[in-house]
Amino acid sequence: MPERENGSSPTPTAAVGIVGAGQLARMVCEAASVLSIRTAVLAGHHDDAAASVAHDVVVGTPADAIAMRTMAQCCDVLTFDHEQVDLGVLADLERAGTLLRPGLETLRMAVDKAQMRARLQAGGLPVPAYEVLDGPPGASTSHVAGALEAFASRYGWPVVVKATRGGYDGKGVWVVHDAGEAQRVVAGAAANATPLLVEELVKIDIELAVVVARRADGETVAWPPVETAQIDGVCREVVYPGRVPPALAREASALAREVAGVAGVTGVLAVELFSADGRLLVNEIAARPHNSAHWTIEGATTSQFENHLRAVLDLPLGDTSPIASHVASVNIFGAPSGGTGSTGSTGSTGSTGGRGPGSGLAHALAVRGAHVHLYGKAPRPGRKLGHVTICGEDARDVRRRAWAAATALGTPVPASLDLGTP
Amino acid sequence: MPERENGSSPTPTAAVGIVGAGQLARMVCEAASVLSIRTAVLAGHHDDAAASVAHDVVVGTPADAIAMRTMAQCCDVLTFDHEQVDLGVLADLERAGTLLRPGLETLRMAVDKAQMRARLQAGGLPVPAYEVLDGPPGASTSHVAGALEAFASRYGWPVVVKATRGGYDGKGVWVVHDAGEAQRVVAGAAANATPLLVEELVKIDIELAVVVARRADGETVAWPPVETAQIDGVCREVVYPGRVPPALAREASALAREVAGVAGVTGVLAVELFSADGRLLVNEIAARPHNSAHWTIEGATTSQFENHLRAVLDLPLGDTSPIASHVASVNIFGAPSGGTGSTGSTGSTGSTGGRGPGSGLAHALAVRGAHVHLYGKAPRPGRKLGHVTICGEDARDVRRRAWAAATALGTPVPASLDLGTP
Repeated sequence: MPERENGSSPTPTAAVGIVGAGQLARMVCEAASVLSIRTAVLAGHHDDAAASVAHDVVVGTPADAIAMRTMAQCCDVLTFDHEQVDLGVLADLERAGTLLRPGLETLRMAVDKAQMRARLQAGGLPVPAYEVLDGPPGASTSHVAGALEAFASRYGWPVVVKATRGGYDGKGVWVVHDAGEAQRVVAGAAANATPLLVEELVKIDIELAVVVARRADGETVAWPPVETAQIDGVCREVVYPGRVPPALAREASALAREVAGVAGVTGVLAVELFSADGRLLVNEIAARPHNSAHWTIEGATTSQFENHLRAVLDLPLGDTSPIASHVASVNIFGAPSGGTGSTGSTGSTGSTGGRGPGSGLAHALAVRGAHVHLYGKAPRPGRKLGHVTICGEDARDVRRRAWAAATALGTPVPASLDLGTP
Repeated sequence: MPERENGSSPTPTAAVGIVGAGQLARMVCEAASVLSIRTAVLAGHHDDAAASVAHDVVVGTPADAIAMRTMAQCCDVLTFDHEQVDLGVLADLERAGTLLRPGLETLRMAVDKAQMRARLQAGGLPVPAYEVLDGPPGASTSHVAGALEAFASRYGWPVVVKATRGGYDGKGVWVVHDAGEAQRVVAGAAANATPLLVEELVKIDIELAVVVARRADGETVAWPPVETAQIDGVCREVVYPGRVPPALAREASALAREVAGVAGVTGVLAVELFSADGRLLVNEIAARPHNSAHWTIEGATTSQFENHLRAVLDLPLGDTSPIASHVASVNIFGAPSGGTGSTGSTGSTGSTGGRGPGSGLAHALAVRGAHVHLYGKAPRPGRKLGHVTICGEDARDVRRRAWAAATALGTPVPASLDLGTP
């Protein structure tokens, strides 16, 4: 892929530019290829997951105004693969005429959990009890810790503390059990100038997610709710329909559509929810394609990636109907040992996926109906390297097969996940 | 995509090399991307359909021994997007250790209709009555025409005359009605040194196709038979299951598996069949992915493109079960006027699909469940530019929707195709 010199003034070349070049951008680019829609990605490194799939690659970071301007000049619309964006740089670009989808107002909510909580609450939508822990400028950490302890005395320990910006996949989230731990977390965050908020620790019955796609005129489509399984804040498995009762699913879908309206999103929006004691609460949102809808590539009539493209290009949105009764999608991670696990044991030469597949892939592909996705990322312990999806007519069977394929690729069933219950 | 200098000695970089860079290669590369399998294509032009999707592009032709050697050196296995290969060049490569899948014996059958007919007949498989029209060296065209006329006097006019090499999409096929026409066709072919064969014109009840995938050890999987509709030798529509009666489907599947065994194919093999007066005849074969199985991308559990990759890399073959009761796939062509039709009316800048989609695409995507594929080829009258697939539960409805989307993309329903009957 020809890399573009930062600061050059290229003729426009791409319909869609994506800030970020991880697997989400990669899968958007894969969907774009089918429609012959040209893509460009802003990649931190030339061997990022999407770099080998996008038509054009600009190497740089979202805070780099010159790299971002290069992206803006060569694309019809800019969209996003992650939340680590620089709102100031984006505001400058927008003022200069760049089309951002989602737009700045949505992004402010998507990248800042305090903003998200406040806007949802202002919209009358249910969120966990929370408090933003920003003292006045120069407030001491003990002031902040004190506010945290006051919150805990009202809602009970443990509480959940979150960095309001920059967290993902469980990073920037702490379960805090007592005042001592609170002091340490607050001090650490202060050292990084990380603003925090504190939330009640919700006694979760079920974790679910709803992903919607919304056009600029507000037209919204939604995939059915799914049950998600997180371990240490990292998504391990997504199941449709999971154990989500139909009435709860309907309520969750309606709530997600409201969230999309409050966010004013153009593109895909993922809404992660808790059900606790019968009440539905919005946990997190992401204004981009999301792990909780990878299943839609094979499991639904239109994938989240294709609908994200359609939405940001203002094309009609595609049907979100599932194509099977049950779908299970399991993430593949780098092995804890730091080795390549089973993913690239033969011929793997690095982050673009090396040349050919390893022996683990053969065993995974031997699992009937296995839809294996490998993102071309260099394996590192705990790093998301791919996912496997199985569609079928039996709830337990699709999970069993998905985990069989994942196991072959080096990601066995975690001890805390029970495959016995659908 | 970095283009490789012919004659350079690169380090191996691709798992799969494809001779040819048309839409078949493009869709193989799209499937490879999902699995992070690296691909290289031999492209006649740097803007061929697959060139923007493959990881590496070698510009050259199959007859160019240096370009082919470059491909062989950078790929673990070579496979094919078309039949215009040079068997001599391939034989040299194979002698030097290059892995060809399918191999030379299969290719000889796939690229030469006379070979194909002879090998199938020798295997006891049903083909139309035929005769190869090669006279002794230096035989006059009247000698050849005389043989043609003798065949016609036995089997009746009209007869079908085919170039034994080089034909596709109806090219190199003539329906010959009388001796005068015979003389003209033979003279034209002689001028191009094109060997011919003549076949009986079969009174076709139904045209169908079966596509199979076969591993080196002989393990074979088959997608269910489909009904195909050709106009002037060009495939216009493929329907699963179409009007193929179940008993005929079973017979066709069994026959296709036998053909795959006779051909000794590794990879995908498409078998095009006629049913005439209750008898099943093999019309054509192709040892590569084929138009008659594009529907498998969304319509079956595993696509022909993914299974072709799995087969040539000796990976387990994927489940071929359909995911819906009815699937219709319609080809999109360049408009007769020579313009861009509706495909690229906005922002289209050429053969890599330009930047963004045209207004026709919006209307096509508005058709519920439309799976649109655009190959990034410069529009020319009659050129295959893409296809649309619809999956559903009603035979008439899937065809209706597929043709609605095709119409929006500039390819209306031909007068001779009746959408009223399923």
